[in-house]
Amino acid sequence: MTMSPPSPLIEALQQAVGAAHVLTEGDLSAYEHDWRRRARGRALAVVRPASAEQVAAVVRACVAHGATIVPQGGNTGLAVGSVPDETGTQVLLSLRRMDKVRAVDAANLTITVEAGCILQNLQGAAEAAGYLFPLSLAAEGSCTIGGNLATNAGGTQVVRYGNARELCLGLEVVTAQGEVWSGLTGLRKDNTGYDLRDLYIGSEGTLGIITAATLKLYPRPAAKLTAWAAVPSMQAAVDLLGLAHARLGAGLTGFEVMGQFALSLVDKHYPQLRVPLFKESPWCVLLENSDHESEAHARALFEQLLETALEGGCVTDAVVAENLTQAKGLWHIRESIPLAQAEEGLNIKHDISIPVSRIPAFVEETDALLAREIPGVRLVDFGHLGDGNLHYNVQAPEHGDAKAFLRDEEDRINTLVFDAVARHEGSISAEHGIGSLKAAKLPHYKSAVALGLMRGIKQALDPQGLMNPGRVLTTDSTGTGGNPR
Amino acid sequence: MTMSPPSPLIEALQQAVGAAHVLTEGDLSAYEHDWRRRARGRALAVVRPASAEQVAAVVRACVAHGATIVPQGGNTGLAVGSVPDETGTQVLLSLRRMDKVRAVDAANLTITVEAGCILQNLQGAAEAAGYLFPLSLAAEGSCTIGGNLATNAGGTQVVRYGNARELCLGLEVVTAQGEVWSGLTGLRKDNTGYDLRDLYIGSEGTLGIITAATLKLYPRPAAKLTAWAAVPSMQAAVDLLGLAHARLGAGLTGFEVMGQFALSLVDKHYPQLRVPLFKESPWCVLLENSDHESEAHARALFEQLLETALEGGCVTDAVVAENLTQAKGLWHIRESIPLAQAEEGLNIKHDISIPVSRIPAFVEETDALLAREIPGVRLVDFGHLGDGNLHYNVQAPEHGDAKAFLRDEEDRINTLVFDAVARHEGSISAEHGIGSLKAAKLPHYKSAVALGLMRGIKQALDPQGLMNPGRVLTTDSTGTGGNPR
Repeated sequence: MTMSPPSPLIEALQQAVGAAHVLTEGDLSAYEHDWRRRARGRALAVVRPASAEQVAAVVRACVAHGATIVPQGGNTGLAVGSVPDETGTQVLLSLRRMDKVRAVDAANLTITVEAGCILQNLQGAAEAAGYLFPLSLAAEGSCTIGGNLATNAGGTQVVRYGNARELCLGLEVVTAQGEVWSGLTGLRKDNTGYDLRDLYIGSEGTLGIITAATLKLYPRPAAKLTAWAAVPSMQAAVDLLGLAHARLGAGLTGFEVMGQFALSLVDKHYPQLRVPLFKESPWCVLLENSDHESEAHARALFEQLLETALEGGCVTDAVVAENLTQAKGLWHIRESIPLAQAEEGLNIKHDISIPVSRIPAFVEETDALLAREIPGVRLVDFGHLGDGNLHYNVQAPEHGDAKAFLRDEEDRINTLVFDAVARHEGSISAEHGIGSLKAAKLPHYKSAVALGLMRGIKQALDPQGLMNPGRVLTTDSTGTGGNPR
Repeated sequence: MTMSPPSPLIEALQQAVGAAHVLTEGDLSAYEHDWRRRARGRALAVVRPASAEQVAAVVRACVAHGATIVPQGGNTGLAVGSVPDETGTQVLLSLRRMDKVRAVDAANLTITVEAGCILQNLQGAAEAAGYLFPLSLAAEGSCTIGGNLATNAGGTQVVRYGNARELCLGLEVVTAQGEVWSGLTGLRKDNTGYDLRDLYIGSEGTLGIITAATLKLYPRPAAKLTAWAAVPSMQAAVDLLGLAHARLGAGLTGFEVMGQFALSLVDKHYPQLRVPLFKESPWCVLLENSDHESEAHARALFEQLLETALEGGCVTDAVVAENLTQAKGLWHIRESIPLAQAEEGLNIKHDISIPVSRIPAFVEETDALLAREIPGVRLVDFGHLGDGNLHYNVQAPEHGDAKAFLRDEEDRINTLVFDAVARHEGSISAEHGIGSLKAAKLPHYKSAVALGLMRGIKQALDPQGLMNPGRVLTTDSTGTGGNPR
């Protein structure tokens, strides 16, 4: 086997981060295919810098050689936003080596961490200091905070604490020119110019690379209780949400809704989980109450709430977890819905949001529309009702060829669902982002004025178009990025 | 008196909004000087559109004639950001006629209002619907929500609810090209591209004109209690804040600190207000506890907190307001500090933020520095300690010529304070913004990389430089805007 000498770009990358951290050979598939294996690309090289300065040097090398850059954290994204395309020309920039907790400032309630820090480790560092970092989502064992910020991740605690955006006070970013913007402020108030922080958050690596962040910490609640309630309709679930807001205030830290068919899949594939109350009810709700006083106080408040809801008719039956094990068991049922869906077979995932007030009408109309248009369709409805965020998923009909169904119907189903979302003033991507998966759809559902402003910003901050091309905004060149299958 | 025919621009403006709403004569001083009367300019015309479409038509007329635009809400800003310069060439665009509440969506906990709605009227509309809109600040009787958003206003409830930014879900904006971006979403989660909302919020009218907003509502608490505590040091105040966070969680809705000299001015000029506990204590703290359960519950929690603080030594004495009248009285003392300062004579205002953990060191060092550098200086320290935001104001020496003092020392004092802020990783403008008052200072305290990104964005969204020139970013041309005196 003969080896060709490394290209000038590879040499420059090696100089930037050390030869050991420029991977060009061996099995790079973990970097090259996405979490759901919908796309598989090929990187020119996988580069693993250890500091913001090294990231900046990598970017400058890419600028000098006109190479495009795909930043990657834990590579757990669901919108095909962090894998290279198939050209073999893109530099995959992995932030995973930048995983340090730089500082905890207890009196300021902040923590400063590097982008590659795994979310679970960040949660753990906060807990070790006696505080709570509330961002929590299914992939927390492998996703990184940099990826969470780049995609403005949501999860299960948004009803109280907001998305990743709301938890971030400051950023360190490497710009598309390879400069370091040191914006790691721990300030709650800072009105000195344009909000660069929130521009980078959610920009999916297309404007620059987040290398570190200063994040909010919260006091740990004294008690956390979980309840499971059967509700007679989606409207009843919305009514229960309003009641819970009024009674619990900021104590309401979780409010999930789950449709009967979604829960029946969990029951079918994981009978040992013993799904409660779903057989007689079209919807179940999981509520979480965090309390700064005591468990007894939390329990009393929670039981009063559920009694009022039972009397008022928006709940037909309910259980409150007796202990932490039971609470975890209830959450585990909720989190097992996507797994049960996968066991059941191929399916189409949606991640939509609608104003909470319009969700009952949206679900009723769209369920009927799909039933009419797609014979045998099975709807797996669940999601973060507290945030108006539904994972309105579609399972292939029970006894058909699921692969053929997806091939023939996926695009039409997406259009039916997204058009319904648009009619109800919703969003086609609530928490997963656009990536390359939805980049072509976006122009149909985002106003031309907004897209024009976005393109202007992209052009201003990344005039060469080297940062994660084809994500969020489509490119006119061939760089379509990720090529979703 | 002969009248010259209107210029083509005036004619175009009259066509856009109707001749009755283009003011060119009479007393326009209310539009032309700023709240603190530090600047007085002259407008070519004051234009008062009634809809986003009319605002867009005004902007297009100005674009066609190369006229610059100064948007204005209630004109209560403290950074000279919304009055015309002295050239007589700028169009003053007042949003005051756009003052409608467009919609309340109770189940979605949102309200949609036009930019010119007075903050107090917005609070009232929320209350009438049974909800809370928590933004609250001294100027709420005259400031508009559009101005609040354009400057990302803060106020007294930020420790719980965040700044104006955190309370906003969607915007309607007229761009610098005179297009309407309809981004009035009521969604809690929407990851479909760059965060245009937060870019316009806090951009002080330099990127476009906010014409309406969809804002978050909160359930109204069942009870709100206010306490006043004497604390032996700023460090003790910080310790009390940490304890209050831990015990009250999100129930802590206000945490203000006030220095002894600041309170002595209130006592001197408004003895009828009867300032409690300040004579034996260097600092007092005002705490507010909002409770979703009951007043009895709130009182029990609050008293436990203060007992613990008394035992631990971070509080030396405390009173809890017995009723709403007493609570309002305590807040009124806090809000009277700026008025008492004005009664005392000329002074220099600062609006800084520092990480909460560093505030004790900042205050100790900077007090000593100023005492050393400026003989006879009197420091009026107070502010929103819960957000790390101090109004670290400087009163002229007691028996000198205050006017001469300001003329000779203001710039040096600002530099001393801002340099100290920078050493402690703080911000020179926490909640008031930059306007033209601090535009020249900003380059000294903001990184060149950040300023470069800001200039790139300004150039992308307002390439002709017509939107509120000289605010936030200085211009190279003569348009210095507002000419602060």
